[in-house]
This record gives sequence, structure tokens and C-alpha cells, in this order.
Amino acid sequence: MRTAFYISDGTAITAEVFGHALLTLFPAQFEHITLPFIETAEMALQVKQRINDGYKTTGLRPLVFHTFVDEALRVIISQSEGVCYDFLNTFVEPIQHELGMAPVPKTHRTHSMHEKTYDFRIDAVNYALANDDGANMKNFNQADIILVGVSRSGKTPTSLYLALQYGIKAANYPFVEEDMTTLQLPSELKKHQPKLFGLTITAERLSQIRQQRRPNSRYASIQQCALELKEVERLYQREQIPFINSTQLSIEEISAKIISRTGLKRQKY
Amino acid sequence: MRTAFYISDGTAITAEVFGHALLTLFPAQFEHITLPFIETAEMALQVKQRINDGYKTTGLRPLVFHTFVDEALRVIISQSEGVCYDFLNTFVEPIQHELGMAPVPKTHRTHSMHEKTYDFRIDAVNYALANDDGANMKNFNQADIILVGVSRSGKTPTSLYLALQYGIKAANYPFVEEDMTTLQLPSELKKHQPKLFGLTITAERLSQIRQQRRPNSRYASIQQCALELKEVERLYQREQIPFINSTQLSIEEISAKIISRTGLKRQKY
Repeated sequence: MRTAFYISDGTAITAEVFGHALLTLFPAQFEHITLPFIETAEMALQVKQRINDGYKTTGLRPLVFHTFVDEALRVIISQSEGVCYDFLNTFVEPIQHELGMAPVPKTHRTHSMHEKTYDFRIDAVNYALANDDGANMKNFNQADIILVGVSRSGKTPTSLYLALQYGIKAANYPFVEEDMTTLQLPSELKKHQPKLFGLTITAERLSQIRQQRRPNSRYASIQQCALELKEVERLYQREQIPFINSTQLSIEEISAKIISRTGLKRQKY
Repeated sequence: MRTAFYISDGTAITAEVFGHALLTLFPAQFEHITLPFIETAEMALQVKQRINDGYKTTGLRPLVFHTFVDEALRVIISQSEGVCYDFLNTFVEPIQHELGMAPVPKTHRTHSMHEKTYDFRIDAVNYALANDDGANMKNFNQADIILVGVSRSGKTPTSLYLALQYGIKAANYPFVEEDMTTLQLPSELKKHQPKLFGLTITAERLSQIRQQRRPNSRYASIQQCALELKEVERLYQREQIPFINSTQLSIEEISAKIISRTGLKRQKY
């Protein structure tokens, strides 16, 4: 099996996320090796050796995706026997040309706590945790968005993703079974109506998810799921709450759609 | 101000994370616009118009970072008056050549719930939430890793990041003030010693963070922080628990270092 290396003098997150996205386009298997924080010539030389060893062992040139800010380290890796894809420099040069200014390279600029927006993100994670599942409705005034929906429709993971990825403060509020016969918007939510965003899901998928949590319960039954979803969707329509169906969507996709629909201001790109 | 567009027929996460990483290398300000889910020719033509309008308004050609899987949509965007950086195709062609096989493009392959590892990640998020802050020590046998440390040393956000980004199940356990005079490893942790990983931090930084939570408390005092950290670091050394100092590190960096030091198997790249 061919080896794919993701290497950087920083976290290597850009290299691995982007490199892996490229490789998923090809119908082939790879052994994936991520090597972050390669910060000295000695470490870079060891990595170079490891790449060369990989070539010797498999007879296939390893694919090497890298994002070095340090020029000298980059050169060492480029001299390996791997097929190197230099994610930064490939684009830095044309961008430099277009902008008419030189880059000011600085290691650990992305994915570091020295990013201006880092504190926003940690605050947002703490906010999401403290305001999960309808806790502390008095804090809703600090929310950027309040996700609503039935239990297990994806509110919590989406709130956390919005916080970690974008520094967006997302509270969430569950509509629970007891509310269903006369589902009204609680006054605390009504007060913050412009911030509300609804999630829904198909009854089949919801029932599957709930089965894992409480097997063979009324809570997990398709009838109960269908009933709750019907009431909740009716509420969304009556109260003109924007909503999306999360059945076929990942939390990344749900989050991207919510931001795109609401125009929410993100703290981080 | 020049505009930077991040555009895709998927979430545009790759375009914006990578494009933004490139732009942070330059000492310039940009207006950032992300346009995900551009899935029809009509939408692509609107985006093209928006790019052209941006050029007219500012007199500066917008930078356009894109990752279209759909060829026809990609062509429409490429014909805009923006300076286009095609993240996928720039690398797909040389990789195709090296592998000797054609790509099998499929929209929404990354960042979608159809990724094989998506369920691992959601399970891991639920696990991290259920096993935060020493809750449910009986579940430690399911953990991939157990983060330990004093209160506010970064355990919870790191656990969540490990779950969301990598599908790693991280529990966490706080050493609290009451334990400090005779700090011993609780038997439930001792049982899972190979999974333990410690976090530490400087007393100054910890005191700052705790001040935000409980201003002017004994809990936030530099003396109390220093005492707890000294005891905890002594425990790490006595029990040979690997640990890192998180003071200067982001959760991305802490996570990358933990994975690199422990060799933890990630479920997602």
C-alpha cells in the first residue's frame, strides 16, 4: 500500500485535512502518516529518511503533502524521494504576485492560540456547554443563535461545531415529549425569536438514533418520533422559524447551511 | 478592501480553511465571503456576477478560492473576473499522473455524513459530553484516552476537539482542590493508567482563566493555582503519566501533540 505523509512545522492540520480531501477522490487505499511540529533540521532529516524508507519498502513513492513555513525545513523534505505537494508555496507565489506584496511567514499562525479569534472560540465552547439542552435560558441574550428541535435531532453536536470552528455562540433548546400536545413557543424563546433556528429530521432516522439511546422505548418508537416531528414542524411554520432537515447532513453541512441562511457573523475563518 | 471568496459545491470548508491560512501569510486586510452549496449553473452564474461586481466596486480583482467537484460549475466560476485559485484541480492532475488512475469525483465526499467515519465522530462527541469532568468513571473502559489535570487547564475543549476532528473518545477527570493535600491517583484512574494523559499550565495563566470564572476567589488566586499545579505535576512524574504544558498552545496544537506523543489511532483524517 502506498504511504501518504502529512507534514508541517505546525499542527499539520491543513496538510492532513486538505491532503486527505484530495486522496478521497481516488479509488485507492493509502497508509496515512501525520507528522506535526517538525521544527528542527534534525527532525526534518529523520522524516526525509522515513519517506525514503517508505519508498524502499513498498516500491511506491510516498505522497508527501506539506505546509512548511520555515524555508530550510521545506527544502529538506522536498529533497526526499517522495512525490511532494507543497500546499503553501504553490499558491503563495501567485498570490504574492497578484497582491504585489511579500508574505510575512510566521510559524503557527493558523491553528494557534495567537490567532486573534482564539479566545472567542474557547468562550463559545464554554457557552455551548453551559447552555446545552435548555439550561440557563436567562443567558439566551448572549447567544448568536438558538437551535431548537426535538431530542436527538442534532442540536448539541451542531452547537459545539459552530463554537469550535467558527467561534459562534450557540445555545440550544429541546422540545420535549410533555410539550407536544399543546406545543407553544416558550416565552423565553419568543423573546429571542430572531435568533431561533429549527432542526428537523425524518421519523425513521430519529427513531434509529433514539433506539441506540433507549432501545424499544416509547421515546424511540416511530409513532412517537413522527408525532413530535409533526408538531415541531407545524410550530416552525406557524412561528416562521427557519429550519432545515438534518437527516442527510453532517454537522459540518448543517453548520455551513445555517451560517449561509442566517448570515451569522463568524469569529473565525 | 479586496474581497476573498471561498466557494464550493459542498460546504466550502476546505476552501475557507485553506484559503484563509494562505491569506494570513500576507500583511493585508480582506473582506471574506464564503458561498457554500453552489450546486446549480444558475447559482454559479449569480456568484460569477457577484465576483465581477466586486471587481467593479473595489477596482481590485477579488481572490477566489474554490473547490468544485462538478466540472461545469467550476468552469463558470473560472470565467469570472476574479483571480481564481483552484484548490482541487491544481493537485488532482499531478496526483492522477503519479497514481496512474483517474479520480472518481463525487460531490460532498468530505465533510459529509457519508464519510465512513462520521458516526464515530458523533459517538465520540456524545461520549466526551457524557464523560466530561469525571462523570461516569465506569465508562473509562470505552475511552481511547483520559485527560487529567486541574480545573480549567483545557481538558474539556480538548476532549471535544479530539472527538469532532478525529473521532477519538476522550474522557476527562479533574483533580480538585480537596484532593490536593494528599494527591493520589484514584483507583478508577489507576486501572486505566495507560490511557492517562496530563495537562498542565502556568500558575499565572491558570489564575487569569479562573479569575474570569470566579473573580477574586481563593480558587483563582495565584497561590492556590501554583499549589495545585505543583501537586499535579508531582503526581504526573511519580506515576509516569505523560503530560504537556498547555499555556502557549491552542486546542488544535494540544490535540496534535497528544496524538503524536501517544500514537492514538484516529478515526478520521
